[in-house]
Amino acid sequence: MRGGLVRDIGEFGLISALQQALPDAARAGGDLALGIGDDAALWRPANGDPVVISTDSLVEGIHFRLDWTDWERLGHKSLAVNLSDIAAMGAKPAVAVVTLALRGNERVADLEALYSGMGALALASGTRIAGGDIVSSPYAVSINVTILGTAPGGRVLTRAGANPGDLIAVSGTLGASAAGLKLLQAGGMNARRRATTADLLIEAHLRPQPRLALGQLLLAQGATSAMDLSDGLLGDLPKLLGASGARARLVEGDIPVAAAVRALFASEWFQMATRGGEDYELLFTIPRAKFTELQSAALKIGSTVTAIGEILPGDAELPQIVLHTANGERPVRSGAFDHFS
Amino acid sequence: MRGGLVRDIGEFGLISALQQALPDAARAGGDLALGIGDDAALWRPANGDPVVISTDSLVEGIHFRLDWTDWERLGHKSLAVNLSDIAAMGAKPAVAVVTLALRGNERVADLEALYSGMGALALASGTRIAGGDIVSSPYAVSINVTILGTAPGGRVLTRAGANPGDLIAVSGTLGASAAGLKLLQAGGMNARRRATTADLLIEAHLRPQPRLALGQLLLAQGATSAMDLSDGLLGDLPKLLGASGARARLVEGDIPVAAAVRALFASEWFQMATRGGEDYELLFTIPRAKFTELQSAALKIGSTVTAIGEILPGDAELPQIVLHTANGERPVRSGAFDHFS
Repeated sequence: MRGGLVRDIGEFGLISALQQALPDAARAGGDLALGIGDDAALWRPANGDPVVISTDSLVEGIHFRLDWTDWERLGHKSLAVNLSDIAAMGAKPAVAVVTLALRGNERVADLEALYSGMGALALASGTRIAGGDIVSSPYAVSINVTILGTAPGGRVLTRAGANPGDLIAVSGTLGASAAGLKLLQAGGMNARRRATTADLLIEAHLRPQPRLALGQLLLAQGATSAMDLSDGLLGDLPKLLGASGARARLVEGDIPVAAAVRALFASEWFQMATRGGEDYELLFTIPRAKFTELQSAALKIGSTVTAIGEILPGDAELPQIVLHTANGERPVRSGAFDHFS
Repeated sequence: MRGGLVRDIGEFGLISALQQALPDAARAGGDLALGIGDDAALWRPANGDPVVISTDSLVEGIHFRLDWTDWERLGHKSLAVNLSDIAAMGAKPAVAVVTLALRGNERVADLEALYSGMGALALASGTRIAGGDIVSSPYAVSINVTILGTAPGGRVLTRAGANPGDLIAVSGTLGASAAGLKLLQAGGMNARRRATTADLLIEAHLRPQPRLALGQLLLAQGATSAMDLSDGLLGDLPKLLGASGARARLVEGDIPVAAAVRALFASEWFQMATRGGEDYELLFTIPRAKFTELQSAALKIGSTVTAIGEILPGDAELPQIVLHTANGERPVRSGAFDHFS
């Protein structure tokens, strides 16, 4: 592999190669309880509560287009995708550090709108913006946010911990963000004017809502594992299964798909809901006996959760995910969105 | 200003405008004791020691050129510039989160070398690399590092705190990094072969050493303020003076300039030492009575510190910095390197 290129081994292959390049004492271990590979890193300082750390970047032309979003929504989203990682661990956000890479020809008022969008979500989520670095970037705007959260009580949810027999569940509905992106690709900003349903889908893509209260509830109600859905159900579930050493049976008819997605995309809705990405809903597992109580508690904070399958014992000889459909069961190909493939 | 462009108001004007765009409760305050504007942010979680947070990015074509550095040195430097911020606060590094923005056509072996350079410095400084995000960046490689440190005992050094009568001092010598950059600009990698002294200067530019042990010593020995020198003495000192509400008298002949810089740059050495930037030495203030003891203690950990002037009472009517020379005193223009101007 040493002559290989980044695009040949992809994001996840590269992450693993880079971990190997570090000396043992500079990798996860010791006070760094979780390193790369989960939604966030987990640091246990000598004194005090564990600190959850997550980082995400949005790059112009890759993650956003300035003719599709406005700066206020971009500010919201750049913080939201990080808060979503904190939510997935059941943690509480505290401080965000922001790095802006700018060409220099941006309007100051646009960047104020960016901060305004970020600030409104920071306020709503109890996060303080610590500022950070502003660097020159000749070709494309990018926004990097690193967020710190606390785990009061010392516990967090991770991707590892799902047990055979646990229910697999998701929050909200899936596919709206992918459908919104498709509408933007088809019509740019004009797509906004097509229909109220189209507006809703586009808004789901441009302004995702991190499920912070639900994440904390999942931890309190005994969920065994969790992650946020950024690469689509069939992209992300394999990561949870890998970390938990488990397999899964999903029930096709139980996967909650936004009605507008089914209505506008008759042939693509299932792909959008399972491989589309950027839903920023939570995917989690929980013992069957605890699910009904969780469902009621979730409703009280305005969240819906839907069981979509169950955890099976790990077995390397068998398909990792099987899909139960009206026509019986079949294995499904897993697939994460890979920025370099 | 609302119609203005980023390049018109510059980095520091923009930072201030963006702070204003945040709601009060999302700005520094509460558990975020220090936000933007100092070397690092200071977060005081409800339980535990204060956490120091710093972030810095290196962007290809702006902060480095791949024909001037190798990947191993680039890895070292991308962590070193962050550790330098931790050093300036007298804090102890703990965890670094790394975001790589890559084109995809990089060699995996080169990125392993990057991590190897970062890993060696992480090991030497007691930092663990928590990994982070890998994103696609079509035009230029960039490396963003966010580092967390602890302030055992709860105290940190900041830019505010210099008192009239305090000595102003720096660690090491100044100007070597700027001279090294000049040599690279003049001859690219061939400059390496010119002379051993040239090699040393280039190495100072490509592989800066964060002054972590010295930073902790400054705190213990009663320094009143500190920062690291990234924008040159006359770029950075005004920030310290501004934060402390003070003025300064510098003594030209006392500013420690690397001998190789004087030798190779007969006409430019003073500019390089005072405005060149990227020295990553520490600039600090300390009561006069404590300086000799600090000097001895610093020598024991292999550091030199040199007094270069003194703090004067703040007075908006008078020049912020005066330079004492063989021909008397004159005001000097302060000047930070601004990436957008």
